[in-house]
Amino acid sequence: MRLFHNDYNVSCHPAIMAKMEECAREQVSGYGLDQYCESAAAKIKGLCENDNVFVHFLVGGTQANLTVIAAALRPHQCVIGADTAHINVHETGAIEATGHKVIGLKSDDGKITAAQVETLIMEHEGCDDAEHIAQPKMVYISNSTELGTIYKRSELEQLSAVCKKHGLYLYMDGARLSYALAAEDNDVTFADLARLCDVFYIGGTKCGAMFGEAVVITNPALATDFRYMIKQRGALLAKGWLLGMQFDVLMDNGLYISIAREANKLAEKIKKVLLSRNYPMVVETTTNQIFAVMPEKDLAQIADNFTYSANEKVDPEHRVVRFCTSWATSGEDVDALCNALSNLK
Amino acid sequence: MRLFHNDYNVSCHPAIMAKMEECAREQVSGYGLDQYCESAAAKIKGLCENDNVFVHFLVGGTQANLTVIAAALRPHQCVIGADTAHINVHETGAIEATGHKVIGLKSDDGKITAAQVETLIMEHEGCDDAEHIAQPKMVYISNSTELGTIYKRSELEQLSAVCKKHGLYLYMDGARLSYALAAEDNDVTFADLARLCDVFYIGGTKCGAMFGEAVVITNPALATDFRYMIKQRGALLAKGWLLGMQFDVLMDNGLYISIAREANKLAEKIKKVLLSRNYPMVVETTTNQIFAVMPEKDLAQIADNFTYSANEKVDPEHRVVRFCTSWATSGEDVDALCNALSNLK
Amino acid sequence: MRLFHNDYNVSCHPAIMAKMEECAREQVSGYGLDQYCESAAAKIKGLCENDNVFVHFLVGGTQANLTVIAAALRPHQCVIGADTAHINVHETGAIEATGHKVIGLKSDDGKITAAQVETLIMEHEGCDDAEHIAQPKMVYISNSTELGTIYKRSELEQLSAVCKKHGLYLYMDGARLSYALAAEDNDVTFADLARLCDVFYIGGTKCGAMFGEAVVITNPALATDFRYMIKQRGALLAKGWLLGMQFDVLMDNGLYISIAREANKLAEKIKKVLLSRNYPMVVETTTNQIFAVMPEKDLAQIADNFTYSANEKVDPEHRVVRFCTSWATSGEDVDALCNALSNLK
Amino acid sequence: MRLFHNDYNVSCHPAIMAKMEECAREQVSGYGLDQYCESAAAKIKGLCENDNVFVHFLVGGTQANLTVIAAALRPHQCVIGADTAHINVHETGAIEATGHKVIGLKSDDGKITAAQVETLIMEHEGCDDAEHIAQPKMVYISNSTELGTIYKRSELEQLSAVCKKHGLYLYMDGARLSYALAAEDNDVTFADLARLCDVFYIGGTKCGAMFGEAVVITNPALATDFRYMIKQRGALLAKGWLLGMQFDVLMDNGLYISIAREANKLAEKIKKVLLSRNYPMVVETTTNQIFAVMPEKDLAQIADNFTYSANEKVDPEHRVVRFCTSWATSGEDVDALCNALSNLK
Repeated sequence: MRLFHNDYNVSCHPAIMAKMEECAREQVSGYGLDQYCESAAAKIKGLCENDNVFVHFLVGGTQANLTVIAAALRPHQCVIGADTAHINVHETGAIEATGHKVIGLKSDDGKITAAQVETLIMEHEGCDDAEHIAQPKMVYISNSTELGTIYKRSELEQLSAVCKKHGLYLYMDGARLSYALAAEDNDVTFADLARLCDVFYIGGTKCGAMFGEAVVITNPALATDFRYMIKQRGALLAKGWLLGMQFDVLMDNGLYISIAREANKLAEKIKKVLLSRNYPMVVETTTNQIFAVMPEKDLAQIADNFTYSANEKVDPEHRVVRFCTSWATSGEDVDALCNALSNLK
Repeated sequence: MRLFHNDYNVSCHPAIMAKMEECAREQVSGYGLDQYCESAAAKIKGLCENDNVFVHFLVGGTQANLTVIAAALRPHQCVIGADTAHINVHETGAIEATGHKVIGLKSDDGKITAAQVETLIMEHEGCDDAEHIAQPKMVYISNSTELGTIYKRSELEQLSAVCKKHGLYLYMDGARLSYALAAEDNDVTFADLARLCDVFYIGGTKCGAMFGEAVVITNPALATDFRYMIKQRGALLAKGWLLGMQFDVLMDNGLYISIAREANKLAEKIKKVLLSRNYPMVVETTTNQIFAVMPEKDLAQIADNFTYSANEKVDPEHRVVRFCTSWATSGEDVDALCNALSNLK
Repeated sequence: MRLFHNDYNVSCHPAIMAKMEECAREQVSGYGLDQYCESAAAKIKGLCENDNVFVHFLVGGTQANLTVIAAALRPHQCVIGADTAHINVHETGAIEATGHKVIGLKSDDGKITAAQVETLIMEHEGCDDAEHIAQPKMVYISNSTELGTIYKRSELEQLSAVCKKHGLYLYMDGARLSYALAAEDNDVTFADLARLCDVFYIGGTKCGAMFGEAVVITNPALATDFRYMIKQRGALLAKGWLLGMQFDVLMDNGLYISIAREANKLAEKIKKVLLSRNYPMVVETTTNQIFAVMPEKDLAQIADNFTYSANEKVDPEHRVVRFCTSWATSGEDVDALCNALSNLK
Repeated sequence: MRLFHNDYNVSCHPAIMAKMEECAREQVSGYGLDQYCESAAAKIKGLCENDNVFVHFLVGGTQANLTVIAAALRPHQCVIGADTAHINVHETGAIEATGHKVIGLKSDDGKITAAQVETLIMEHEGCDDAEHIAQPKMVYISNSTELGTIYKRSELEQLSAVCKKHGLYLYMDGARLSYALAAEDNDVTFADLARLCDVFYIGGTKCGAMFGEAVVITNPALATDFRYMIKQRGALLAKGWLLGMQFDVLMDNGLYISIAREANKLAEKIKKVLLSRNYPMVVETTTNQIFAVMPEKDLAQIADNFTYSANEKVDPEHRVVRFCTSWATSGEDVDALCNALSNLK
C-alpha cells in the first residue's frame, strides 16, 4: 500500500534521525532551556530578520493553537477564522474547551479576506448591545490552508492592517508552512510573517520533523508568561531539546523549504494526471494537497494499492478526495499512482 | 416615551408584588429549600402531568442556559441550535466559556428541523475521524424563538424522536414560553414539553415575574447533582423563596398564559397596522414580537415617542425593526403606537 | 421557630420594599443602564470619595466573586485567600470552574496577613521552575470574614502595599461589609476601601437588600469590558434597575450602616450570654456572627425553638455553632434566645 | 558536569533508538491506529493479565493527568491528592484550568491513606450544605511519589476499597512507575494496578523513553469517547506510532523494570554515602530519588561538577536537596558523585 491520505505518515527526515542518533547519550537540561533550542531559535530569528521575536517549541498543532489562543484572549473574546479552519472543524472543540468562541467566516478556498474581517468587526462595534456578543480579538489564518491554498503577501498585508486598525491579533497556523513558502507562486518570506503576524507557528510535524511546531511571537504583549501557559496546557516537553534539535536541522541551510519544494512538485504531477482525466478540482492549489471530485467507481479501482482522503460526497456517484504528498513521498510512489490513475477503466 | 423595544421593561405583575409585600417580614429558609418553591414546583408538576420531574428556580436566562448545558455535556460534546439561537449570538460566548462548542444550523425563522439535526448527526457518525470533531449531544431550541415563531407539537415530536434515536438531549429555552403557549395557533401543552424534552425552562423574567426561570428536568440522567451545578455557576439565589413565590403566583389559575394572551393580542394589533402600511414582515409570528422591514424615514417620525429594536439594515434606507409587547403593555400605549404608524407621512 | 442560622432569611428592608412598590409599573431600560443604577452608583462614588471608580450591580456573592476573578486573571494565574475563604470552601469550586487555582493560606481567624502573602510570593519568585507553579496574581479577603472578624485599616494598608509591590490585585469580598463597617472597633471607611483595594464589593443580600452586590472597581486595568464578563457569566440582570433601586435606598443617609449596627448590638447580647455560660468563643468577633463551642446536650434544649448553624464537632460531646443576627433580627427574638440560653439545665 | 537534578536528561534507551532507526522510512497510519500501538497495548494487557483494559499513548505526564481528570469528572467534582501531589503543586494549575478543584491532603511522605480519604468523604457527605462544596470524585496518587516513596499492595487495596465504597475513581500517576515496581521492597504488580485502579498511567518519559506515557483505563465508565478527549486536549500525537513503538520496546522482556532496578541501585549507593555523612533523610526511599538535608557549604563544594535539585531551605545554612538517578545514569558518574561527597571538607 502506498499512502497518499495524509502528509504525516513517515517518521522524520534522515538528517534529523542522524542528529538524534548522534546525541542519544548526551545529558541535556530539560524543558527547552538547552543549547539546541537556543540554536534553533537563533536560526528562526535570523530568517525572521528580527532578534526580538520569542520562539517556543511545542509538540503538535492543536496544542500550539489552543495554547496560543488561550494565552492571548480574555474570557469574553473570540477568534475569527474561515469556516473550514482547523480550529473550527477538526480540533474537537479544543478552542471552545479553553473558553473561547470560534467565529467561522464563509470561505470557498480556505482563506479569509481583510474585508470579511472588517465587516464583522464593524457589525460588532456598531451594535447597541455589543457586550451581549463575544468580542472579536484575534484573526486565525492557516498557510497553506486546510484546502492547500496560500496567502499572497498583499493579502497578508491587508489582513494585518485591518487587525492593527481595530486592535486584533493576527495569528497564522503554519502546520504546512513549508509547503506554502515553497509554492511556485509564493511571494511571502519568514520576515514578512514576522512583520505582519502577531504570532505564528512554523510547522514541523508535517514538514520533515518527527513532531514539533515552533511558535514565533512577535507582539511582546503576547509573550509575557508564555511558558506558564505552555506548561499549564501540558505542552512543555520534558526533553525539550528533542524539539530544538529537529528545528535546528530543519532551519539549517534551507532544508525546510527545499524538501517541501520536492513534495509540491510531486503533487503537481498528480494534479496534472487528475486534470488530464477531467476530474474537477475543488480549488486551485500549488502546494502538497490536491482536492478533486472523483467518481466512486474510479476510486474503487485504486483503493487496493493507494490511500487517499475520502471527503464529502457531492452526489451518490462522486466524492471529494484529497491526495497528499510530503517531504517523504517517493517519486516512485507518485509514478505508480499517476500510472494507476492514467489507466483507469 | 412608550417602550416597545423589549419585553422586560416593567418590574412584575401586581399579583406578584402583592405576594412579596405580604411575606416581606417572614423568616424563610434559604437556597430554594422552602415552602414557596415546593408549592410552585408542585403546580409545575401538575401542569406537566408528571410528578417525577425535577424543578429548580434560577434567576436569569443566560444563567439557566449555561448551567443546564454545562451540567449535561461532557467536555468533548457540543450543542446544536439555530444560527440565530440566543446561546449562539447573544450570550457573549457563555456556553463556550463553559467549554462547549455551539453549532449553528441555518435557519430563516429561528426554528430548526429534525431533518437538519439528523443530517448533522449522520455526517458526524459517518466520519472516519469523528473524534477530531466535537460530538453532538444536545439540541437547543427556543419557544417562542428569538424571531417570535413557535414550534408545533408535531415538530417537537419529530425533534424529540431524532434526539432519542441518536442519544441526544432535547433542551427548550422557554424565556418567552408564555407567549408561545398563549399563541392562537399553538397546540403544545406543558405536558407535551415534559414528555418531549429532556429539560426545558419556563421563563419568568419576560413573562410576568421580576426575574426568574424555572428549569424543569424530565430526564433523570440530567438531574443528578444539579444543585451543585447551580451553586457553582453562581446561580443559587440565597433568598430562593423569592423565586418560588413568583412562580407560585404565575402558575396559579392560568395567570402565566392569560397575561401572555393579552400581550399577543396587542402585538397582533401592531402587526395589522404594519401590514396595512405594506411593510414586509421578516417572518410570520403569532406571539409578542413583530419583526418588520421599515424605511428609516418612517422610523424617524416615531422615534421621539416610541422605542423599538433597531436591528440590521437591509439597505441604506431600510432596516429590520422589532416591536415587542409584554404582559405589562397597556392598550393605551399600543393605540398610541398604532395611531402614530397609521399617520406617518 | 426563630431563625439564627444565617443572615439572609428575610426578604428586604421596608424602605426597599416601599420603593419597589412605588416603581412597580414604571417602564425602565434594561441591563443596568437606567437612572436608579446611575443614582446608586453616584452615591457609592460619593462614599468612596472618588468619582472615577466603576460600579456594577450583580445579583449574588458567588456570582460576583467568579465574575471579578475570571475577569482579572490570565489563565495561568491564581488567587490567594485564607483557607477558610468563601471562594475556597463554599462555592463548589466556582473559581476553579473559571480555570483558576485558589491557594488557601492557614488562618485561625479568617484573616490573612501581608507577611503571609509576601512569603508566598517570594517563594514563587525565588523558584527555579516558577512556570511550573500557578502564578499568584490576586489576594482575596473578606470583610467581615467568614468567621465574623474584621480587618483594621492598618492591616489593609499592609496588604495593599505588598500587593502593589509585587503587582497583585487586592480584592475584598464584602458580602457582610455593612456589619464590618458598623463594628464598634472598625476604623475603615468606604474611602479607605476605594484607596486600598483594586476591586471590592458592597454586599446587599445579607445587608438589607432582597438580593444584590455592588462591585466597585478602582483599578482601571480591571474595568475594561467588565460588562462583557457580567453578561457571559449569566450575571447581567435583565431588569437591572431592581438592583440599582435597592442600593439607591441602602446607600442613602447611612441606612446601610445603621441597620447593621443594630444587628451587631443584638449579636453582642447573645455573645454575652454565651460567655456568661463559659462557652469558649472560637474567635473574638464584634459583628453579627458569633462562633462558640457548645455541648450537644445544651443545643438539644434549644433546637425546638431556635435555629443555629451546626458546624464541625470538636469532640463527641461538643460542636462549633454559629449564631447570626441580621438587619431583620428582632430584639424580641434575641431576648427569647438569650433567655433560653440562660435557663439551660 | 554530571547531572543528578532530574531523571529525564537523556534521550532514550538504545533499544528504542535502534527501533526508531529501523522504522525511520516506513509509512504508518496516524493518530495511534497502527500496528506498533497495537502490539504495545497487547503487551500491556498481558502484564495487566486483563484483555479488557483500554490503552492510550500520550506524550507527557501533565498532559496525561489533565486529559484523564477532565474526562472523568463532571464540572462540580474535584480530585483529592497529597498536598505534595504533582497536580497540586507542579502543573501550573493545569487541573484547575480544566475546571476542577484539587484538594490537597496533608502528607509528609508524598502518600495518602485510605483513612484520610474516608474522613474527607464522610465530612462531605455529612454536610448540610454539601452542594456548596466541590464533590470528591477521584483520588489521585503517584507511584513512586514525588518524594520517591512507594505504595505497598495493602495500601492500594485499602485506597481502592474506600474509593469503591463511596463511588470515587482511583487514579495512579505512574510517571516513575518503573522505579516503584523495581524497588526492593515493592510487592505490587501491573496486574494489581489493573485490579485496584480505575485508571493509571505507565510512565515512559522518565523510564527509558524519549517521551510518552501509556494511559491504562480499567473502568469502562472512563473509557467512553476517551480519544475525543485526547484530541481536544492537544494530546493526540499525529505520528502516534512513535509512542507505540517505544512502549513496544520497553514492555518487552522486562526491560521497563530491569533498567529501573539499576537506577535504584545507583541511588542506593548515593544514599549510603549521604547517610555516612549523617545528612538527615527527608523521607526513606528505595527508588531513584534521594531527598536529604545538606549544609549549603557542602553543596557549594560539589556544585561545579554535579547538578542536584535545590529545594526549600530549612534554615539559613541548610537546604533540602534531591539527587536523582535514572535508567541512563552511569556507574562512573555515581562513583564520581559518591567520591566527591565522601571527600567534602
